Amino acid sequence: MSAKLEFFYDYVSPYSYMANSQLEQLGDFVIDYRPMFLGGVMKATGNQPPGMLLPRLAYMLHDLDRWARHYGIAFRSNSIFPQNTLAALRLALVAKRDGCFDRLHQRLFDAMFIDDRDLSDLAVLREILVAAGLDADAMLAAIEDPDIKAALKTNTEEAVARGAFGAPTMFVGDEMFFGNDRLPFVRAALEASGR
Amino acid sequence: MSAKLEFFYDYVSPYSYMANSQLEQLGDFVIDYRPMFLGGVMKATGNQPPGMLLPRLAYMLHDLDRWARHYGIAFRSNSIFPQNTLAALRLALVAKRDGCFDRLHQRLFDAMFIDDRDLSDLAVLREILVAAGLDADAMLAAIEDPDIKAALKTNTEEAVARGAFGAPTMFVGDEMFFGNDRLPFVRAALEASGR
Repeated sequence: MSAKLEFFYDYVSPYSYMANSQLEQLGDFVIDYRPMFLGGVMKATGNQPPGMLLPRLAYMLHDLDRWARHYGIAFRSNSIFPQNTLAALRLALVAKRDGCFDRLHQRLFDAMFIDDRDLSDLAVLREILVAAGLDADAMLAAIEDPDIKAALKTNTEEAVARGAFGAPTMFVGDEMFFGNDRLPFVRAALEASGR
Repeated sequence: MSAKLEFFYDYVSPYSYMANSQLEQLGDFVIDYRPMFLGGVMKATGNQPPGMLLPRLAYMLHDLDRWARHYGIAFRSNSIFPQNTLAALRLALVAKRDGCFDRLHQRLFDAMFIDDRDLSDLAVLREILVAAGLDADAMLAAIEDPDIKAALKTNTEEAVARGAFGAPTMFVGDEMFFGNDRLPFVRAALEASGR
């Protein structure tokens, strides 16, 4: 049986964007994408977004540019802050349920961290769905489904119950890893668990 | 002229201990050890020790064990918390002034993160000095020198003025790096600046 990586993330989180760009290069492992509401994780744990501290925010902007150069990916800090990503996260869960997650997921991250879009705006989400060739009406209606709302709440609560306090948070079995900078440790854990 | 790394650290900081263990392996660079009082940095920036958040503390203990294994070094979380490291940091500055920093520095980190000692206890500092073959009476007297106290204050204030909000904070020229996990970026910056 192949080793599995559980990837708890939010489209609002730039370090989630960074980690997400590297997951498929980790090797031949199962990746379970688990959208979670970072605002809910922060509230549940008493944590605060790192950018709330001004010197840390200034540093993060340099740090994120360094990671983007290191990974060879495009990146631009989103100018609209804070953004409520509940609808975007629920949309990702609709896409998972409907078997079209792969067609939507990267577009949501790119809208946030390349194209400077506002993912809290349903009209923006509609544009992204249309560009992906997906059924925008049906999928936007589905984000109101109680099952979808419950699924996001479950992911968020499960992440907190398992020890998460920020994003991205990754699990290989019971082992938890926080941040894209821990991907070398994630890879080692996946390789060890896949043996 | 050789490239220079400025290493702002506190003996109370486990990630400073981790980074410190790797500095000499970065290459043939000048390392300027800049003891700073992390409590002062936290107060000046409004930051809090990461371990104040309980889920983060639980994670950090695993994370630090992973780094220690990765680096192949001994590590044990110190059980005495918080510890006031003002005397230890001033002692390091006395040692720098007196040309014996290399004989003392690693012993202070090891006392904190291998031997579970209390560096706020002057008797412990005396033991460390004696074990290092240094003049304990003279050096412990010197930590009260106004110049030494001022030097620690200067390092701390300079770190904050340049953007630091935690430890370890490293500079290569004007480029700032936070955390032992950024050492690969530090190495790249040193190599680029040394060319």
